[in-house]
Amino acid sequence: RVDGSRLWATIAETARFGATPAGGLNRLTLSPEDGQVRDWFRDACQAAGLTVRVDALGTQYALRPGRDASRLPVAFGSHLDTQPTGGRFDGILGVLAGLEAMRALNDAGIETEAPLLLVNWTNEEGSRFAPAMMASAAYAGDFTTDEILDKTDAAGITVGDALDAIGYRGTDAVGDQAIGAFVELHIEQGPILEAEGLTVGVVEGGQGIAWFDGTITGFEAHAGTTPMPRRRDALLGLAEIALAVERIARAHAPTAVATVGEAVIGAPSRNVVPGLVRFTLDVRDPKSEVLDAIEAELRASLPAIAERRNLAVDLARIWRKEPVPFDPGVIAAVDAAAESLGLSRRRMVSGAGHDACNLAGRVPTAMIFVPCKDGVSHNESESATPADCAAGADVLLQTVLTLANA
Amino acid sequence: RVDGSRLWATIAETARFGATPAGGLNRLTLSPEDGQVRDWFRDACQAAGLTVRVDALGTQYALRPGRDASRLPVAFGSHLDTQPTGGRFDGILGVLAGLEAMRALNDAGIETEAPLLLVNWTNEEGSRFAPAMMASAAYAGDFTTDEILDKTDAAGITVGDALDAIGYRGTDAVGDQAIGAFVELHIEQGPILEAEGLTVGVVEGGQGIAWFDGTITGFEAHAGTTPMPRRRDALLGLAEIALAVERIARAHAPTAVATVGEAVIGAPSRNVVPGLVRFTLDVRDPKSEVLDAIEAELRASLPAIAERRNLAVDLARIWRKEPVPFDPGVIAAVDAAAESLGLSRRRMVSGAGHDACNLAGRVPTAMIFVPCKDGVSHNESESATPADCAAGADVLLQTVLTLANA
Ligand SMILES: NC(=O)NCCC(=O)O
Ligand SMILES: NC(=O)NCCC(=O)O
Repeated sequence: RVDGSRLWATIAETARFGATPAGGLNRLTLSPEDGQVRDWFRDACQAAGLTVRVDALGTQYALRPGRDASRLPVAFGSHLDTQPTGGRFDGILGVLAGLEAMRALNDAGIETEAPLLLVNWTNEEGSRFAPAMMASAAYAGDFTTDEILDKTDAAGITVGDALDAIGYRGTDAVGDQAIGAFVELHIEQGPILEAEGLTVGVVEGGQGIAWFDGTITGFEAHAGTTPMPRRRDALLGLAEIALAVERIARAHAPTAVATVGEAVIGAPSRNVVPGLVRFTLDVRDPKSEVLDAIEAELRASLPAIAERRNLAVDLARIWRKEPVPFDPGVIAAVDAAAESLGLSRRRMVSGAGHDACNLAGRVPTAMIFVPCKDGVSHNESESATPADCAAGADVLLQTVLTLANA
Repeated sequence: RVDGSRLWATIAETARFGATPAGGLNRLTLSPEDGQVRDWFRDACQAAGLTVRVDALGTQYALRPGRDASRLPVAFGSHLDTQPTGGRFDGILGVLAGLEAMRALNDAGIETEAPLLLVNWTNEEGSRFAPAMMASAAYAGDFTTDEILDKTDAAGITVGDALDAIGYRGTDAVGDQAIGAFVELHIEQGPILEAEGLTVGVVEGGQGIAWFDGTITGFEAHAGTTPMPRRRDALLGLAEIALAVERIARAHAPTAVATVGEAVIGAPSRNVVPGLVRFTLDVRDPKSEVLDAIEAELRASLPAIAERRNLAVDLARIWRKEPVPFDPGVIAAVDAAAESLGLSRRRMVSGAGHDACNLAGRVPTAMIFVPCKDGVSHNESESATPADCAAGADVLLQTVLTLANA
């Protein structure tokens, strides 16, 4: 069993890196604050006797040897980066519960058969650099390391430069650290467990995600002299597109969700009709066909908007992550661990993307969810109880022990 | 008569300050580029024998003495600042045609009865600092100098600091430079003269303008896990409000126009439901009652949007400029000047705000318009012909001579 108070204190301890006045975190990947929490994590792992390595995309791997050096390590962890309006649990719980598991094993003097590996994946959030879960995707072979190193943020800074800026461009090749199985603990980020009064979600897979970059081109014009019918207002084009996105997602209720999360006017001015708008679109559903349908319906609705408003609309799909099922064996191990701990639970699918969804393509993988308040995440008010965090960490520890000693 | 080629060359000469790759200008008020063109203007005025003074809000006044020092100067000019997507004529033509008029009088050795005063008003555009026509409003007594000095741009920089940064906080008190009459030459910024094949607009007044700052507050939430019905999406709120603004303005066709020119998401991220949006609104009509009606109709439509989407919407009116009639005597002088030059013309109302609209509250004022290509302004492609610019400058010169020798 883990030490729940120590875990809770550790969560509080790291919440100073990137703390916001509203009690949340703004710790964008590869920012100075992310560098600080990485340094802290490395030191804490070393203090727990773990050997820490860093790969070429900055992912940190902390190894605890097993009795049988020939076996592949059982890996677990998550991410320490956050959204600009991030909370104190998203990703962080998974990494720090993993650290707590290591500490608990040390305290109890337990040696496992297989080695154990705690991982902090780079850029899970996808806010500063797209796509999300970038480093685990490269680990799984979905991108080359160079493709990822060249991705840029809104300021044009590459992942490579950002890694150098905080000293986290490691020397290990991405994917060289072999892994035998992967388990990720995470807050649910949705309302189901809380609503049903359950403690543990046994996660059977992740839904599909498609990301798009859109551009709407109209014509800058004087706000005081340009008659309404002559305007080519790119912001009004965005307004119609955003409402169409909502309507189409709702037509695929209750599973589908779709979001215009970013929208920027090219050269904004109070008395200029907007001539250029760039926006992002995030579409999700557990079914691949529904992702296809939503994209097709949206594309079908664009020409009428563009024509009526005399705008050019471009929508480019920049990323697609297919729905992914987790491994029945690891799912069963999670379920058995929760059972042995007497924790109430249910099977569920993840609405958020997670590094586990990438790992699942390469190694046997599953996830553990615990409730979060009102299902709220990507918000500074994100919250989880000490008891639920400890319960999740216990399930993680028991699952890992089962897998490592099997 | 002015020297049209010299005027055209002078327009080209100053277009290097803040030039954009697309052939327009980005010369926001009190920016370094605005500082450069101000220095150039001061030097050019001094080379033409004028005495240049600067007031506490940076407005430049270039005086040419008259025979009768007891008479108030006849003033003319406009502004040298531009929009972020500005053209090479908006405001600039009025200032440089005024300089050309001074040069032409020097060349012809003409002395006027009243002194002549060429003015470059600070922040006419209102893009960096609101309201537009800021310095002329203070000159006319609509704001105190301190009120204007304290206005801030999006980065929080005050007008006072911005003046200091380019060395243009002058020592003259605002309003101390007395003016007997004001005439402003400007491109029409609308399509009427071109469509009717006319050279000169004899401007009888300016329409009313109301500016608003809006805030829409929802709740940041995870784009992948938050069901559509639970969302409080501030960007979708903006979408509905922007379309309502358009619908209401169109209901007051053909005169009314309304524009959401700026819209910014609080902490944008691809996978976060927008929780905060700030926007601006610009509403115009020649009739005060129509401004009232549009504001009332918009306010009446907000509660339903806010309630249905569970958002808080705040709309604050930050500026209102009533419709303003120009002086019959100065209008007649403009008309007579165009008549004497054999130029085709019509009476019209200005859709844009101009410093003349502020001056009109204090001294006899009127404006001269010349056509611009396709009626386009606040756009880098803004264009006017050398012949029309010269014709406008001739009308300005003749009008000023009439007023100064009357
Ligand atoms: N878990 C999580 O919030 N990941 C970020 C990627 C996404 O699902 O948008
Ligand atoms: N003339 C001009 O474009 N002025 C800017 C102020 C306005 O928006 O009308």
